Amino acid sequence: MHALGMHLLVELKDCNPKILSDLKKVEEILVTAAKAAKATIVQTHFHQFSPFGISGVVIIAESHLSVHTWPEYGYAAVDIFTCGDTLKPELAVSSVIERFHSKQPSIIEVKRGILSRDNVKLPHKAVKGEAIEYARTKELQMVP
Amino acid sequence: MHALGMHLLVELKDCNPKILSDLKKVEEILVTAAKAAKATIVQTHFHQFSPFGISGVVIIAESHLSVHTWPEYGYAAVDIFTCGDTLKPELAVSSVIERFHSKQPSIIEVKRGILSRDNVKLPHKAVKGEAIEYARTKELQMVP
Repeated sequence: MHALGMHLLVELKDCNPKILSDLKKVEEILVTAAKAAKATIVQTHFHQFSPFGISGVVIIAESHLSVHTWPEYGYAAVDIFTCGDTLKPELAVSSVIERFHSKQPSIIEVKRGILSRDNVKLPHKAVKGEAIEYARTKELQMVP
Repeated sequence: MHALGMHLLVELKDCNPKILSDLKKVEEILVTAAKAAKATIVQTHFHQFSPFGISGVVIIAESHLSVHTWPEYGYAAVDIFTCGDTLKPELAVSSVIERFHSKQPSIIEVKRGILSRDNVKLPHKAVKGEAIEYARTKELQMVP
């Protein structure tokens, strides 16, 4: 069904623990993945935790990518949340699987924002008229 | 089954569009939710997009909270990703539903990092010995 966003939950098991604990490398991998998906990067934020583990987010104009690593278990949780028709999130998935050397990757795709039961396609950046029309049918109070 | 992380995908439909388009308010709502969950906030990053829509991330020591709003549709996608036994992510969920005035909220819970088929509970911050033992059984290459 039509949705505003596509959210890929990527479970990366049996990764290379050295990569998972390298802050610069983890950031570079996520940024490369965002670029592979043709996303527009707005900001990146990465943190190293004690005793180990890295969390990071790449905010993109089309939503976000995030990563949390557990090098002690060889595991990383990656999220790739995008909207619009022009991105290629599947290329971001391939990129992170390859770059973290995951031998046991798995992917769950969740559609976010299925707003129309009638499967009407809604633009992810609505022009004013369309948004107002949608709001009217839903009896939503609109932003002035 | 035992997992390293708990990830709540929160679909907030029929929200108050005025709140969804107010950068300061959206940030304050996410920060309040993180605090309600007893999370340790590391950093917050929020952006307003043109013509409308806000994206934001609260990086917490226990993973992250994120939000993407579509005020034109009265919709927000919130993610609450936590790890460890001490947090109360369900309180963050209640908080965002209430504060965004969502009349049609729904929640999906996904466990992230189910690493043991035998349902062994793994500490989310492993002490060195436990991590090494786990890595040994999985024949993982460990961080020195």
